[in-house]
Amino acid sequence: MDTTHRLARFIVSSRYEDIPADVRHEASRAFLNALGCAIGSARHETVERALAAVQPFSGTPQATLWGRSERLDAINAALMNGISTHVLDFDDTHQRAVHPTAPVLPALLAYSEWRPVSGRELVHAFVLGVEAEIRIGLSVFPEHYDIGWHITGTAGTFGAAAAVGKLIGLDEQRMTWTLGIAATQAAGLREMFGSMCKSLHPGNAARNGLTAALLAAQGFTSSERAIEAPRGFANVASTKFEPGVIIEGLGQSYELSRNMYKPYACGLVVHAAIDACIQLKREHALEPAMIERVELTVGPLVPELCGKRDPRDGLEGKFSVYHAAAAALTYGAAGEAQFADDVVRNPAVIALRDRVSAAADPAMRKLEARATIRLRDGTVLESHVEHALGTVERPMSDRDLEDKFRGLTEDVLSAAQSAKIIELCWGVESLNDAGELSRATAVS
Amino acid sequence: MDTTHRLARFIVSSRYEDIPADVRHEASRAFLNALGCAIGSARHETVERALAAVQPFSGTPQATLWGRSERLDAINAALMNGISTHVLDFDDTHQRAVHPTAPVLPALLAYSEWRPVSGRELVHAFVLGVEAEIRIGLSVFPEHYDIGWHITGTAGTFGAAAAVGKLIGLDEQRMTWTLGIAATQAAGLREMFGSMCKSLHPGNAARNGLTAALLAAQGFTSSERAIEAPRGFANVASTKFEPGVIIEGLGQSYELSRNMYKPYACGLVVHAAIDACIQLKREHALEPAMIERVELTVGPLVPELCGKRDPRDGLEGKFSVYHAAAAALTYGAAGEAQFADDVVRNPAVIALRDRVSAAADPAMRKLEARATIRLRDGTVLESHVEHALGTVERPMSDRDLEDKFRGLTEDVLSAAQSAKIIELCWGVESLNDAGELSRATAVS
Repeated sequence: MDTTHRLARFIVSSRYEDIPADVRHEASRAFLNALGCAIGSARHETVERALAAVQPFSGTPQATLWGRSERLDAINAALMNGISTHVLDFDDTHQRAVHPTAPVLPALLAYSEWRPVSGRELVHAFVLGVEAEIRIGLSVFPEHYDIGWHITGTAGTFGAAAAVGKLIGLDEQRMTWTLGIAATQAAGLREMFGSMCKSLHPGNAARNGLTAALLAAQGFTSSERAIEAPRGFANVASTKFEPGVIIEGLGQSYELSRNMYKPYACGLVVHAAIDACIQLKREHALEPAMIERVELTVGPLVPELCGKRDPRDGLEGKFSVYHAAAAALTYGAAGEAQFADDVVRNPAVIALRDRVSAAADPAMRKLEARATIRLRDGTVLESHVEHALGTVERPMSDRDLEDKFRGLTEDVLSAAQSAKIIELCWGVESLNDAGELSRATAVS
Repeated sequence: MDTTHRLARFIVSSRYEDIPADVRHEASRAFLNALGCAIGSARHETVERALAAVQPFSGTPQATLWGRSERLDAINAALMNGISTHVLDFDDTHQRAVHPTAPVLPALLAYSEWRPVSGRELVHAFVLGVEAEIRIGLSVFPEHYDIGWHITGTAGTFGAAAAVGKLIGLDEQRMTWTLGIAATQAAGLREMFGSMCKSLHPGNAARNGLTAALLAAQGFTSSERAIEAPRGFANVASTKFEPGVIIEGLGQSYELSRNMYKPYACGLVVHAAIDACIQLKREHALEPAMIERVELTVGPLVPELCGKRDPRDGLEGKFSVYHAAAAALTYGAAGEAQFADDVVRNPAVIALRDRVSAAADPAMRKLEARATIRLRDGTVLESHVEHALGTVERPMSDRDLEDKFRGLTEDVLSAAQSAKIIELCWGVESLNDAGELSRATAVS
């Protein structure tokens, strides 16, 4: 039997009882993290412009825009929530590739507000959607990404489609078509990084994946070998294809277990350096005035990706390991607030930033760093972070994720509304109507 | 200046007066042909299933579904009319590649029903959209197609985007973003040929192209080198890229001049053989009973693409040069009616079909054929068609296109409504409100 059919059969035949409790709990963590990201950027310029473009065409208000007052039809809501979840680049990252939740959850919750399903059904469909998404992505990775495809856009389309297909309860034939209709819509170029289109990719993946499942549910046909055929997705959009990555060991472990959450509002590669700085600040009650010099030893990707010496605004600050370290040592944090324009332009932060140096060491892993801090009084402090906070080896705790959620949403939600959403995420499997989770994010 | 910017500048700076009269007339021909195809398949199963999937999410009824009573929001109407225009594979074909009109016209007319524009603006935007579409397509052709991309889906997204961007009146910056947002949504796999997804491709191209222009109009940003950058569309989705094909000679001639229309409801490669048979039938008043044997000499692609010896239904009949010749000799025509299931299964047609042979000759051009017919009375008739009817060398006349339109729509429209649409197409440039053309196709 062929890859696409075998994957479809697995998704269709999976039972809720098959999913281990820790994997289901990971879904709650992913939901809380994604909703926080989306609510925190609900008024972002990228979101406002996209909404202005599509709102005149939206149908019956069926689904919530997270953290906003508007409701759109489910397809447009999936698009918009996919954009807002990713726009800060603060959403989750699978250990190897793909931002898993931004394409999948918006599609699922938009559908759930239109056609009520239980919290258990939502969690089950989410776990399976992510499974399809990551396995298809990894089967063509890294060549697919190296060629220039934004894998969150491409693999994400499959993830959203498979998840909604499961929620609808499609049979194997229609699930196969769902994957095929997803395959022929999978898109998104890395060339768009740095522009608003980057977050359009998970938005489109959510919209197109949802549409794929809705079409297949009506009997709309596609190729039945959309992934593996000589002219299927894998061969057309990559120079590598390992079908075994998709079909081997299905159901024995779940890719959602390898999901990571960012504690800091910037590129992953500088997280370990931030960790080291925050750790030393806390242990030694450091203040900027005490610090003579900060010497960072970082992985080789850091200068390439985050080497901006003189960032001019918040966005550039996210690509500056120097700013990140200075902000961490000044505020003991590196959330969105520490990457605001006025923080990046704050003379005190700049003065400390200018005393930060970073040396790349090829022996360092991607999420490893060392900080050596020389104080004015001659003391030398050192911290070595082997795995940044948020990695699979050193995950953020549930409490960390709650703190992150509150930090992201404090300007948008009351403390009571924030607490309610946190409670709904942890207890999502007891919900009779999963759409309650979306509706709880609405603001007046 | 870079390719994307130069193309954007050309589109933005083009004036209506720059477009030669014969090119503008070709737009009318393309409109008439596309509307006929869409109206003739307005109740096709593919269309019905797609509509059932998206209708619950459609917004305010802003735009007509051609040949139907429903109205949807403009974005969903663009999607649906893109599907219905292409579903019979009877729509137009550029001389070298791409079905030009199915992605572009649905996007333009849906927009025009939402925000009225003049017939001249419609024609101007259409000519420029097709220009962008064909040039971008040919800049990566044939490698892009050989890899497995359905070029009508990919290039079509650019075409629809550029056309609507012109209609909106975007400046160069926003037109550049429009092309970028199109680039990152361009998709469609040839693997889908033979399934309903094939006509989803121009539908999605219309929907996504329209959305790209609407987003850019709101200031939604993209890469500004989306076509030519190392990780731009051309390099990611092809192994060939000739930027000169896009930017050289812009405005000196128009690709729409090289547009072709199909007189027969099947693959282009068998058209010359049909021509030869119809010609001999007319000249000699042939009846099937008079015919002993039919020997066809055809291009080398015919056996590969249309070599079905025993087609079982209408769809298979379209891929059988034997059925096509038998039907042409029986009915003197090869429209949709001659590819109906009951015609393909008609014992009289089958009996004649079994007396047809076809030999491939590598020296034959793609749209060339020879027919030798041996009659029972010993007479031998021969016809050599150098260029099939509908090619640029031997175009269908305006009158032919009217006949085709009437043939396609006679089961859906009254003669008066059909005549009205024909009149509106020929006089489209005198319309104050181009949306009238769409609304004229509505049935109650």
